[in-house]
Amino acid sequence: TQQLVPKPSPEARRARPYRVSSADRSERKGIVAHSLEDLLLKVQDTMMLADKPFFLVLEKDGTTVETEEYFQSLAEDTMFMVLHKGQKWQPPSEQGTRYQL
Amino acid sequence: TQQLVPKPSPEARRARPYRVSSADRSERKGIVAHSLEDLLLKVQDTMMLADKPFFLVLEKDGTTVETEEYFQSLAEDTMFMVLHKGQKWQPPSEQGTRYQL
Repeated sequence: TQQLVPKPSPEARRARPYRVSSADRSERKGIVAHSLEDLLLKVQDTMMLADKPFFLVLEKDGTTVETEEYFQSLAEDTMFMVLHKGQKWQPPSEQGTRYQL
Repeated sequence: TQQLVPKPSPEARRARPYRVSSADRSERKGIVAHSLEDLLLKVQDTMMLADKPFFLVLEKDGTTVETEEYFQSLAEDTMFMVLHKGQKWQPPSEQGTRYQL
């Protein structure tokens, strides 16, 4: 009998590891996620962001990551940065001495 | 039997990730697109450009990207910049301290 092949659900996507940094680069966490939505939920949980709205950018250059499509194009182990509304990405060099040694 | 090989539709082209910067480099977004037309539509949507006409240049040197052919020759992850009519591309160095600290 013929059977429809179901389109893989987002949950079926392979979960991959990422790193997520706070805006001031003082804190970084490793998080495994299978989708952007999943990552956003886990970031909210583990980085204790309470209910303040936030978004994710690439830590290296501040590129905003808004769509699942773009998220899926990124390599595993990509480093993200959490920004709250009104916060701006800053290049690492200008924060060179602020790694809280 | 002979069969016509259909020319791949634009949608059949592999969607690839790009980055798109605002003219002042204060904002960057990651966007997946399969053609220049697709990218232009998504830029208009996600960067809230309303109805002001705009065009795309290479962020690194201001090269205008006008044709699908040239667009397809570019590597994935290429960084574009959105310019409105009358705006001029500026090299990053002159904006070095303008990352909105």
